[in-house]
Amino acid sequence: MNITLLPVRGIGEVRPGDDLPGLISAAIGLRDGDVVVVSSKVVSKAMGLTASPLPGEQVEDARRRIAMSAEVADDVVVDTPHVVVVRTRQGYVCANAGIDASNVPGGELLLLPDDVDAAAEALRDGLRRLAAVDVAVIVSDTFGRAWREGQTDVALGVAGMDALRDERGTVDREGQTLRVTLIAQADQVAGAADMVRDKSAGVPVVVVRGLDVVDTSATGGGKALVRPPETDLFPHGRGWLARRLATGEGAPVRAGLPEDWEWQRVAGAAGGGSFVADRIDVADGLAAGRAEAALLDLGYDAVVHPGEGWTVVVRPVGGPAR
Amino acid sequence: MNITLLPVRGIGEVRPGDDLPGLISAAIGLRDGDVVVVSSKVVSKAMGLTASPLPGEQVEDARRRIAMSAEVADDVVVDTPHVVVVRTRQGYVCANAGIDASNVPGGELLLLPDDVDAAAEALRDGLRRLAAVDVAVIVSDTFGRAWREGQTDVALGVAGMDALRDERGTVDREGQTLRVTLIAQADQVAGAADMVRDKSAGVPVVVVRGLDVVDTSATGGGKALVRPPETDLFPHGRGWLARRLATGEGAPVRAGLPEDWEWQRVAGAAGGGSFVADRIDVADGLAAGRAEAALLDLGYDAVVHPGEGWTVVVRPVGGPAR
Repeated sequence: MNITLLPVRGIGEVRPGDDLPGLISAAIGLRDGDVVVVSSKVVSKAMGLTASPLPGEQVEDARRRIAMSAEVADDVVVDTPHVVVVRTRQGYVCANAGIDASNVPGGELLLLPDDVDAAAEALRDGLRRLAAVDVAVIVSDTFGRAWREGQTDVALGVAGMDALRDERGTVDREGQTLRVTLIAQADQVAGAADMVRDKSAGVPVVVVRGLDVVDTSATGGGKALVRPPETDLFPHGRGWLARRLATGEGAPVRAGLPEDWEWQRVAGAAGGGSFVADRIDVADGLAAGRAEAALLDLGYDAVVHPGEGWTVVVRPVGGPAR
Repeated sequence: MNITLLPVRGIGEVRPGDDLPGLISAAIGLRDGDVVVVSSKVVSKAMGLTASPLPGEQVEDARRRIAMSAEVADDVVVDTPHVVVVRTRQGYVCANAGIDASNVPGGELLLLPDDVDAAAEALRDGLRRLAAVDVAVIVSDTFGRAWREGQTDVALGVAGMDALRDERGTVDREGQTLRVTLIAQADQVAGAADMVRDKSAGVPVVVVRGLDVVDTSATGGGKALVRPPETDLFPHGRGWLARRLATGEGAPVRAGLPEDWEWQRVAGAAGGGSFVADRIDVADGLAAGRAEAALLDLGYDAVVHPGEGWTVVVRPVGGPAR
C-alpha cells in the first residue's frame, strides 16, 4: 500500500463566514477515498469562533482567563505561572484549552468548536456536494504531550473513517491473542499530515491519498479518541494537589465508587482505621490528612471534618462497608 | 512534497544474532534519503534481549516484576492491579516498561535496548555498508498515551535525521513570533509508518520515501524526545501518592530547588508556618500532613518527623529562607 501526502496550497487567509469546502475543492482535485486533514484553526476562523481580551488585558492573560472559565474547562489539570493545562468541556486535555493566539489577526483569540466531529461532518458533506467525492475528514490540532518533548498533530474531529483501528482479539504469529492493540489511526493520520507543512507557511489542509480507510461508523468519530476521566490514570499534574489543598477549588475528576484495591490503599495510607459506607474514621489528624491526600490523589472528593476522631467523608456517598 | 510509505514484507521471523541490515537491504531497494522505520521488537530480537519468567511464574507477573525492577525502572508512575506505568532508565514513561510479551516465541519477554539511539545508528551504518545508501533510521515502539484512547507508534531511537523540528523564533503570517512550536517530527514519522502495517501481519519495517529529512545532528537523536523529569508536569499518576504514603517507596521525581511560587503554594497548603533553608515548621499534625502531601505532589522528597511542632524536612537541602 502506497500513500501520498499532498499539502494544499493557495487557500489563503480564511475569514469568518468563508465557505471552507468551496476553498478546499477549488484548491485541489479530490478523489474518492481521500482523507482531508484540516487544521482546526481554519475551521474555527471560518466559524468565527473568536474572543477578545478585555480592555487593557494582555493576550496571554486573556487566554489564561478564558481557558480556565467554566464555559471552556471542566477541570484544571495543571496550573503554573507558565502554563495552564485544562480538561476542556469536549474532554481534550491540553495547554491553554487549545485556545490559539498565533496566526490570528487583530490580537483576537481563536476557540475550538463545541462539537468538532460535527464540524468534520459538515466539511465532509460540503465536499461531497461541491466536488461529488466521498472523502473522510479529520479536523486536527497541535497538542503537547506528557513525558515527551515536541508537539504532534492529533485528530479532534473525525468523519467518514474509524478513528480507532481495533486489533484486539486478533491472534499474533505465536498464537497469542493481542489484548491491548487499539490503534489511534486518526491521530496517526493527523501527525503524518503535519510532516508536509510548516506552521508559518500556511498549509491548513493536507490530503492523504491511498490510505485504505474503513468507515464502520462503529467508533463514534473523534470523540472515541478522548479517554473518559473515570479510566484516566493521569487526572491531574504537578501542583494540582497543592492548589486544591490551598484553595479548596477544583471539581472531582473521577466519578463512581472506589474499587476494593483502592480502599485497601487508602486504609494503608491512613494507617488503619475503620470504613463505613460513606466515611473513613481514622485515629488522628495526621492520618486524616494522609487519607485525604490519598483520596484526592485517587480522584475522589474527600472532605476532612476536624474533630473528635477525625472523620474523612468521601463523596459521592457509598462504598464498600467492612 | 509527495511522500510514499512502503511496508517491507518478507523479512520473516527475526532471531538472536540475525543480521538486521542484511535482512532489510535484501527485502527492499533503499534509496538515499529514505527513512527506515524499524520496530523495536525486531531490533531487540536480533540483539537477543529476552528475559524468562521464573519457574511457575505467569508471563504477566514476570513482566510486572521485571518492569518494576531497579535494572529497568527509575520510578513507578502508576501502579494498579491492571497496569504498571514506569519511567524507564532511558526516560520512557510507558506501560510495563515497554516489555513485550506478544509475538515472542517460547513465553519469553522482550526488553528494550539500553541505548536505542545507538541501535538506530548501528542499523544505519549497516545499511550504508551493505546497500551503499545514506538513510535515516527510526527505531519505533507502540505506546499508550495519557488522556487519549488508542496507541500510536513513537520514535525511541533516531539516527540520520533531527528528531525535533524547531520552529521557535520563526514569525507567523501576522508577524507574531511562534514561541512553542517544536515539532516531534520523528514521532510523526513513526506514527505515519504504523498506518501501513497491522500488528498481526508481521511488517516490522516501513520505508518512508520523499520526506525532506534534515540532519543537523543538533537535537541528539531520540533522546531529545524524552522530556526530563524536572520539567515534566505529569511526574506521577493515579494512586501514586497513596502508594507512596502507604509504603514509603518511590524516588523523588524532581531535582532542583522549589521556585518561589511553589513555596508560596506549600505555605498556603500548610496553613501558614515559617520556612527555613531546609525545613518547614508548621503548627499541627494535620497541617504537616497537608504540607507533606503538597510537597510530594510537587515532586519533592519530603519527610515528616512527628514531634514537638511537627517538622517537614525537604530534600535536597536548600531553598529560600524567609
